Amino acid sequence: MVTSFGESHGRCVGAIIDGCPAGLSLTVADVQREVDRIRPGESAALTARKEKNQVEIISGVMNGVTTGAPVGLLIWNKDVDDVDYEAIRFKPRPGHADYTAFVKYGGFNDWRGGGRFSGRITAGFVMAGAVARKLLDGLGIEIIAHTVEIGGIAAKPVAYDKIKGNIASDVLRCADPAASRKMAALIARTKEAGDSLGGVVEGIALNVPAGIGEPVFDTLEGDLAKALFAIPAVKGVEFGAGFAAARMKGSENNDPFMIKQRKIATATNNSGGILGGISTGMPLVVRAAVKPVSSIALEQETVDLKKMEKATIKVGGRHDVCIVPRAVVVVEAIMAVTLCDFALRAGLIPGVLK
Amino acid sequence: MVTSFGESHGRCVGAIIDGCPAGLSLTVADVQREVDRIRPGESAALTARKEKNQVEIISGVMNGVTTGAPVGLLIWNKDVDDVDYEAIRFKPRPGHADYTAFVKYGGFNDWRGGGRFSGRITAGFVMAGAVARKLLDGLGIEIIAHTVEIGGIAAKPVAYDKIKGNIASDVLRCADPAASRKMAALIARTKEAGDSLGGVVEGIALNVPAGIGEPVFDTLEGDLAKALFAIPAVKGVEFGAGFAAARMKGSENNDPFMIKQRKIATATNNSGGILGGISTGMPLVVRAAVKPVSSIALEQETVDLKKMEKATIKVGGRHDVCIVPRAVVVVEAIMAVTLCDFALRAGLIPGVLK
Amino acid sequence: MVTSFGESHGRCVGAIIDGCPAGLSLTVADVQREVDRIRPGESAALTARKEKNQVEIISGVMNGVTTGAPVGLLIWNKDVDDVDYEAIRFKPRPGHADYTAFVKYGGFNDWRGGGRFSGRITAGFVMAGAVARKLLDGLGIEIIAHTVEIGGIAAKPVAYDKIKGNIASDVLRCADPAASRKMAALIARTKEAGDSLGGVVEGIALNVPAGIGEPVFDTLEGDLAKALFAIPAVKGVEFGAGFAAARMKGSENNDPFMIKQRKIATATNNSGGILGGISTGMPLVVRAAVKPVSSIALEQETVDLKKMEKATIKVGGRHDVCIVPRAVVVVEAIMAVTLCDFALRAGLIPGVLK
Amino acid sequence: MVTSFGESHGRCVGAIIDGCPAGLSLTVADVQREVDRIRPGESAALTARKEKNQVEIISGVMNGVTTGAPVGLLIWNKDVDDVDYEAIRFKPRPGHADYTAFVKYGGFNDWRGGGRFSGRITAGFVMAGAVARKLLDGLGIEIIAHTVEIGGIAAKPVAYDKIKGNIASDVLRCADPAASRKMAALIARTKEAGDSLGGVVEGIALNVPAGIGEPVFDTLEGDLAKALFAIPAVKGVEFGAGFAAARMKGSENNDPFMIKQRKIATATNNSGGILGGISTGMPLVVRAAVKPVSSIALEQETVDLKKMEKATIKVGGRHDVCIVPRAVVVVEAIMAVTLCDFALRAGLIPGVLK
Repeated sequence: MVTSFGESHGRCVGAIIDGCPAGLSLTVADVQREVDRIRPGESAALTARKEKNQVEIISGVMNGVTTGAPVGLLIWNKDVDDVDYEAIRFKPRPGHADYTAFVKYGGFNDWRGGGRFSGRITAGFVMAGAVARKLLDGLGIEIIAHTVEIGGIAAKPVAYDKIKGNIASDVLRCADPAASRKMAALIARTKEAGDSLGGVVEGIALNVPAGIGEPVFDTLEGDLAKALFAIPAVKGVEFGAGFAAARMKGSENNDPFMIKQRKIATATNNSGGILGGISTGMPLVVRAAVKPVSSIALEQETVDLKKMEKATIKVGGRHDVCIVPRAVVVVEAIMAVTLCDFALRAGLIPGVLK
Repeated sequence: MVTSFGESHGRCVGAIIDGCPAGLSLTVADVQREVDRIRPGESAALTARKEKNQVEIISGVMNGVTTGAPVGLLIWNKDVDDVDYEAIRFKPRPGHADYTAFVKYGGFNDWRGGGRFSGRITAGFVMAGAVARKLLDGLGIEIIAHTVEIGGIAAKPVAYDKIKGNIASDVLRCADPAASRKMAALIARTKEAGDSLGGVVEGIALNVPAGIGEPVFDTLEGDLAKALFAIPAVKGVEFGAGFAAARMKGSENNDPFMIKQRKIATATNNSGGILGGISTGMPLVVRAAVKPVSSIALEQETVDLKKMEKATIKVGGRHDVCIVPRAVVVVEAIMAVTLCDFALRAGLIPGVLK
Repeated sequence: MVTSFGESHGRCVGAIIDGCPAGLSLTVADVQREVDRIRPGESAALTARKEKNQVEIISGVMNGVTTGAPVGLLIWNKDVDDVDYEAIRFKPRPGHADYTAFVKYGGFNDWRGGGRFSGRITAGFVMAGAVARKLLDGLGIEIIAHTVEIGGIAAKPVAYDKIKGNIASDVLRCADPAASRKMAALIARTKEAGDSLGGVVEGIALNVPAGIGEPVFDTLEGDLAKALFAIPAVKGVEFGAGFAAARMKGSENNDPFMIKQRKIATATNNSGGILGGISTGMPLVVRAAVKPVSSIALEQETVDLKKMEKATIKVGGRHDVCIVPRAVVVVEAIMAVTLCDFALRAGLIPGVLK
Repeated sequence: MVTSFGESHGRCVGAIIDGCPAGLSLTVADVQREVDRIRPGESAALTARKEKNQVEIISGVMNGVTTGAPVGLLIWNKDVDDVDYEAIRFKPRPGHADYTAFVKYGGFNDWRGGGRFSGRITAGFVMAGAVARKLLDGLGIEIIAHTVEIGGIAAKPVAYDKIKGNIASDVLRCADPAASRKMAALIARTKEAGDSLGGVVEGIALNVPAGIGEPVFDTLEGDLAKALFAIPAVKGVEFGAGFAAARMKGSENNDPFMIKQRKIATATNNSGGILGGISTGMPLVVRAAVKPVSSIALEQETVDLKKMEKATIKVGGRHDVCIVPRAVVVVEAIMAVTLCDFALRAGLIPGVLK
């Protein structure tokens, strides 16, 4: 459904959504709201970078309503940083895609700020996700993501119906206030040390009807995981009990079926709402492991690709210490886009909305 | 590249490989060898089921060489078990896809032995994987998977060049003999208790050249993860340090670049050989969490879908206690098929082999 | 939706239909009926070859009803002809794909009887078409193809509601009996001369609802044309007035809109029921130009690919003089499969039939 | 490879080219040159509309060289006409997609100037074609299209090596000057009569190596035809002798193989350079039937969709009398994009150009 284009320091980042049903009310504000959520600067602890990301709708919408034609969404890049990227062009930053991009594209890749590999590219998903969410709203499907771990500090489990409220006022988008305070303190200390942190984002989709997904090649797990790995920092994805399930006995992990309000449910939800690649009707639960930000102020060892000799690098400019709270927004968007694709394929969303 | 068809208790399971280059030597024995590796019964601890899976090549090969036409591979189902599936048709087994298949296909799904959702379907991948491995051989790419955890018992790390040798003689395909013995003992105890176990499989691809994979939509991580989730029991996938990376600092997780034998390498491999969705040239490392076998001898709570009332179920017949050692073979096959697709797309494998 | 495999003189020809809804009644007889229609030998004028094509359903159907899993359909090859293909292996037959297959597959292609390029491969479409027709039946969509031209002899236009009846008893599947007699006489004379004939097949789909198809990339015309060119003998495809439209004025070619039985219709149907790539609700009309059969008894000039020198060839064995009447069946099948794909995508056919 | 977006009277028309190799020199001028060729107004006979289509490259190019990231190309719409589209919103213009778009998108489609169905959308192809041509240049593949028929006036056959020169100075892009004069006179007369004309465009690709294309599902004919039907006015596509082949005998239509300059060639080229869906190495020849322009000044019968009653319509504003000369440019672009896709898939174009 979604194609993306653009680079961190090129002219723009954008997304084309082909297959969006006609008749959906869609304004710039609908999309802007989601894009603004990834704007850093809400907390001094997080980042020093200020970006103004003004969304434009360039096609597919007339008089505030989708026409059925491809919806084009675009943000012009404005706030270019002042890092001397030319100076580090041949010194790949450890943990970044600088080296792999150099090999793949023979050095022709846009190396400024990570180019096509920048986290900024995820703005395309967030824009598309804003559209997908509006489509899912019509089905009553709600998507919430939250920070469940930063730098090894884990949030306590919080009931699904409290997460949204709790994270609304939390700068780290963590539903456990006590954990959030500890995370914030750790972020502050790590920032001072010139280092960075990773964490875990949990995404939840409520009211996904049973029967969505395909066995074998287009499982719900497979398509969601593939989409989540589009976030460059994600290094692991698990559903329900996930890796913990590998340590359980069958009698512990199997979710007993039961009848709840005249509908089939499961007593536990170790499956994360998915069995055989298909939704059970229980909350769909996915977790993504986000590695620590690669750009750090500390000196690191690298190689000069031109001279083929040892080198060191100190990545200048402004960096996030921890992108987990921003990744929360991207995970929500990617879940929305992926579930929307499944819903369209399953015929749950009509071609024309009225 | 691969389409699959067939059911657990239907006439056959099969795979069609479209796009296989012409000129590849391919015999039934090449494929049979891999399929035989998933045959259970090598250890009394593992399973009681005996299957004879005779591979047939039904298209795309002439005189032992691929012709460039779609390669058709098929195994006729012979050893049908004696479970009275009709009796449990409307009682979905907890942890199985019985319920989701029932909803998705309106009860028309082949419910016998899991039907299309059976682990037996993975035989299609294993057959396709046998072909893919032969293609990767020509590029010097080697794929090894092994059992790194069963029931919470973790194997010690073993050097890549020793894994293959160590698992050759180990019934659990674990490279750490001491851990393997503990796992075997746990499996025996669990079998007696009528319960089951899960674990973790690690897959490694050596000699993958740098530059394979695409950013954003077709990352190496994304496509490998999607393919691995085709195994019904897989509930988590991680690359390199994976979820552990989420607990590291940037200075710990970033792999410093260095020069090794006149080539770029990284001092550590927390990235699992992938940065920005593209291979670094270091060993590609992926781990899949395998949930415990859903079929257990213990009585479980479920629902009668017809009567919409509480019910209990005891799954009869023969079951594996732990499929992790068999999943090792499937993980290898899926990695081979996926990497082969990337290699074909990158033009590394010519359309005609000579 | 459809994957095909198999070769003319290999073990089998087959098709896998992925995405067929569950709950469709489907028996071997349903498919066999269509396959039998392409069996030559109904008329001495047409061919001397006798094939018994026994259809088998190898997956996706249980108790005569589709399960939602991929439907596998297969015909084992039995009646292998006695042509000495080895003798002509390096002498490409003019008009055949022998040479292009040799180049593309480096000589590894199955060269016997055209291998993967044989008209026999269209049996895969016919099998898939039988399933697609049953799905379209539920929507009231009817597909009829007929012979409108053979060897330059054109049939007179016949009203849509008479075509089916007229061709039922006509060996050439031509709805104009007078033209059919002339065609038959021409076929007989051409056979004696050791030569062959081509012609034109017209396909009609009735009751296709307005609004099917996508603009630009997945137009009804584009997808139907692409599918029809899978028939190796097809060299042209046109819709409605087609090439004749290029000679009309706008005032002649534009179909005026009108109201007919309280529904929008057009007074004429030069558009062939498609405007902007989307169905109008009028009969969908497509014509495919079928080139004369390439295998002829006359001596032809060719090249010895091994010796790289001039050579001559007389194609031995049994050949059809004119495959147009058989192509009628294949055109119907391909139209059915393509329209079925559009109907599924448009959500007109539910995932479960009841 | 190509995604398109935009509408006739929306903000812009654009194309995203994903998969373009890195290292290709690409400037706005390269693309502008092709886009300018579709600008009408070169001949008073053709059209009265003046558009200034300024191309912008919005992604994928840095310092005049492609980076390997998606190439974004865009033209802002400026010259909006003054037709009162609101007045005819519910009166579908005969021959246009107004009615089918209305049904498909429930009236939400952008109806102004044909919206997404406007010929203007083909500018996206022309932009993408400019990039594809540069890639094909490196392989020595040359693409030329020309007008072979307008309003029933056919051009005489012209040798391939003279076409390019002849059409360079011909406003109708017809290689036969005598025919061009007659066509121009007919266009002038037709304009006066308030009517319109269609015609036939022939596209030729020289130096396509033998072996390009896939049998059955991705034939050269099938993919080229599908792409050409993206032009809303195209109603027929044929290759080589095309529909005329249907009237030949096998002995006439079969192209004898021969050796020419130590390479395999065919004495004739009735196959249009394609056998079995795969290129023969001979010139690839395709013809597209272009229906007469739907917008005419004459009064036509239609229906008022709101009132569901008879109505008449006179399409105001500026129209082309005949778009065939402009379609020549689009046919070239579509051939370039399609052949480029095949060349990339066949590994003929490397991922990095140097």
